[in-house]
Amino acid sequence: MSYTAVELIETKRDGGTLSAEAIEWLITAYTAGSVTDYQMSAMAMAIYLNGFDENELADWTRAMLNSGETLDFDDISAAKVDKHSTGGVGDKISIPLAPLVASCGVVVPMMSGRGLGHTGGTLDKLETIPGFFTGLDPDRFGDILRETGIVLAGQSETLVPADRKLYALRDASGTVSSIPLISSSIMSKKLAEGLDGLVLDVKTGSGAFMKSLEDSRTLARTMVGIGKANGVRTVALITDMSQPLGNEVGNANEMAESIATLRGEGPADITDLTMALGEVMLEIAGIDGGRTLLESKIESGEALEKFKEVVAAQDGDTAVIDDPSMLPQAAETATVTADLGGFVTACNALAIGITATRLGAGRERSEDVIDPGVGITLHKKLGDRVDPGDVLATVRFSDKSLWDEHSNKLRSAWTIGEERVSPPDLVMERIE
Amino acid sequence: MSYTAVELIETKRDGGTLSAEAIEWLITAYTAGSVTDYQMSAMAMAIYLNGFDENELADWTRAMLNSGETLDFDDISAAKVDKHSTGGVGDKISIPLAPLVASCGVVVPMMSGRGLGHTGGTLDKLETIPGFFTGLDPDRFGDILRETGIVLAGQSETLVPADRKLYALRDASGTVSSIPLISSSIMSKKLAEGLDGLVLDVKTGSGAFMKSLEDSRTLARTMVGIGKANGVRTVALITDMSQPLGNEVGNANEMAESIATLRGEGPADITDLTMALGEVMLEIAGIDGGRTLLESKIESGEALEKFKEVVAAQDGDTAVIDDPSMLPQAAETATVTADLGGFVTACNALAIGITATRLGAGRERSEDVIDPGVGITLHKKLGDRVDPGDVLATVRFSDKSLWDEHSNKLRSAWTIGEERVSPPDLVMERIE
Repeated sequence: MSYTAVELIETKRDGGTLSAEAIEWLITAYTAGSVTDYQMSAMAMAIYLNGFDENELADWTRAMLNSGETLDFDDISAAKVDKHSTGGVGDKISIPLAPLVASCGVVVPMMSGRGLGHTGGTLDKLETIPGFFTGLDPDRFGDILRETGIVLAGQSETLVPADRKLYALRDASGTVSSIPLISSSIMSKKLAEGLDGLVLDVKTGSGAFMKSLEDSRTLARTMVGIGKANGVRTVALITDMSQPLGNEVGNANEMAESIATLRGEGPADITDLTMALGEVMLEIAGIDGGRTLLESKIESGEALEKFKEVVAAQDGDTAVIDDPSMLPQAAETATVTADLGGFVTACNALAIGITATRLGAGRERSEDVIDPGVGITLHKKLGDRVDPGDVLATVRFSDKSLWDEHSNKLRSAWTIGEERVSPPDLVMERIE
Repeated sequence: MSYTAVELIETKRDGGTLSAEAIEWLITAYTAGSVTDYQMSAMAMAIYLNGFDENELADWTRAMLNSGETLDFDDISAAKVDKHSTGGVGDKISIPLAPLVASCGVVVPMMSGRGLGHTGGTLDKLETIPGFFTGLDPDRFGDILRETGIVLAGQSETLVPADRKLYALRDASGTVSSIPLISSSIMSKKLAEGLDGLVLDVKTGSGAFMKSLEDSRTLARTMVGIGKANGVRTVALITDMSQPLGNEVGNANEMAESIATLRGEGPADITDLTMALGEVMLEIAGIDGGRTLLESKIESGEALEKFKEVVAAQDGDTAVIDDPSMLPQAAETATVTADLGGFVTACNALAIGITATRLGAGRERSEDVIDPGVGITLHKKLGDRVDPGDVLATVRFSDKSLWDEHSNKLRSAWTIGEERVSPPDLVMERIE
């Protein structure tokens, strides 16, 4: 069948349904360049406003997936399971989680992204380890996976090229925050990894992409549906992102906290969420033992050892894992202190994430260069008691003028009230 | 104020309202190229689906109008009035109308377009007169207008450049049939002509862009509103386009029928619609006399003389006006005949327009070259009695294989039934 871009745009514009063949034609032609960016951005806006039904969504995801190479690890008999997070502030869970479950026998072919906007990216955090190489081609990716049972890399350029092109276009044309487009973008990349199962950590709250629980549920259900339609067992946990995860924000800070977690010395929330997601990964992989098994791998040091193994396989300096003080640190420090006494009633993840980004820990635009040693250590979080003058956060930065410009933003992240509030449950719902 | 394209797209996407300053910034940046085509096509789709309020529409039209040069004929004391038709099959009314009202003292600075799709274009019809030049620059346009009181030209490239760019983009991105975008496109071009008044012929029916009376009314009201908001007295007539206008379709055919109309020998519907629109133009120009005056200018030959005058001013060969057999004629002819006897209950304008286009009288794409001698002469129209074997149409074409391919399409345009139907009223409503 042959189509024209205009007729397909008109169909979606008028609330119609696109056939599997039409979607495949469109994505193929867009990847090849015969459907133009201006046609695809009009289509993206029509999808944004008129949506996709379940079949269109599965077909769109499959067409994206088939726009490039896909990985195949059928020769590895153990279950291949990955985790994806929709992104939040202080979310370094992938770094302790992947080696932890790998030490239990789950095979983890993990592809991650870089930070953009107020949320960090796993690749940037991994690269704070000197030498750590994330730009693996598919062959090397497979070799390391077969050798160590775990690999932590960036998205290969040969996988899902349609998504790379479409994502950049959506970013510049006001069509990012569409649940069908987000879901198909995420799931096409994950399905290209040759997985048997996938755990989704869908964040909700002020620091998340989805601010409301209802939107987060819809996103979770949509992605779980795509996973199922493609024969990949997919479970989503909806988790809190009203305040940052853990006590560290910024790349080197978060790597240090990840290493501490693998040593059993991480903060409670990071440890709990790592365990919760790890339990689901074990369950999907058909490995018994649950949290008890996970905890035993921390205690025995096997989880930390697995991390060293993958760091070494990807040319990273494992000495850093034994001595995290070798991680980059920005030269200057400052603190934010409380004016009033009382209890922390808000510790705004978005404000903290934006400040960290502006100080150099993240990127406003994808071409920005990050400063790995910039970070914020949180001393007080939701529900904590504070006295006047208590330090709320310690900040590391390289550029004093940036700190002067943004310190008020950071200070505004804390609200101190008279009544103690309980932090929301970390894991709110499970959707499958 | 400075804006980003993405924030303005998001505003319209989310159903918000764009300020006059934001619209001006967007159109200026798009004309200059700093807002990209893919951003503007996403915006056009958001406008298509979420609309404009009255202020946005006036602001958008004004920003388009101000994207280039505008004409100013304030030194001409007589009223400057133009006519615009939304386009139909066999609609050659501009050609007899403009010289007719000009011969009554109305100054007519008429800019027309070329045929695209199933409807013809006035420029293509005018250019069947050997030598007739329509590509006038603004200076020459003004000179001829001042000299003869009438000029019949194409849109100058210096006028409303934003519309030229945006129209091509909409055509390729599925955002043509939007009432706010159509209205602002038409009105920005007309308002750039330096008019005092404007008559809009808004077509309705199977051969029109707007198929339903309700949509035609909305388009008419929208354009009249824009005209008023810009201080140009604007009146719309909603007129029938369920069957072709007149008996001739195709460029040379329509020029011959136009000349016949100026001689008082045109078909009733062409003559009546020319008079109806002419009466409104006189009224807007403040010239008394109405239809009686118009008829006297036909009878006296002054209307035909005015046409010769403008043809001569634009380098056309006026001998053709005295002898229309000099107009181009395609070499081959064929007829379509009736199988059954009865009455014509449908004479489908769209089918006839499409056939004429496919035979070479029009363009499927703007780069196509037309064949001026291709045409269809209709012998039977709505309500006419036919006997089996009667000729319904005579067709002139150059390429026999095209005729073989499309003759069935033309044959299908006529429906013959047992009961006589009356053609709909030619002028259905007046909106101002």
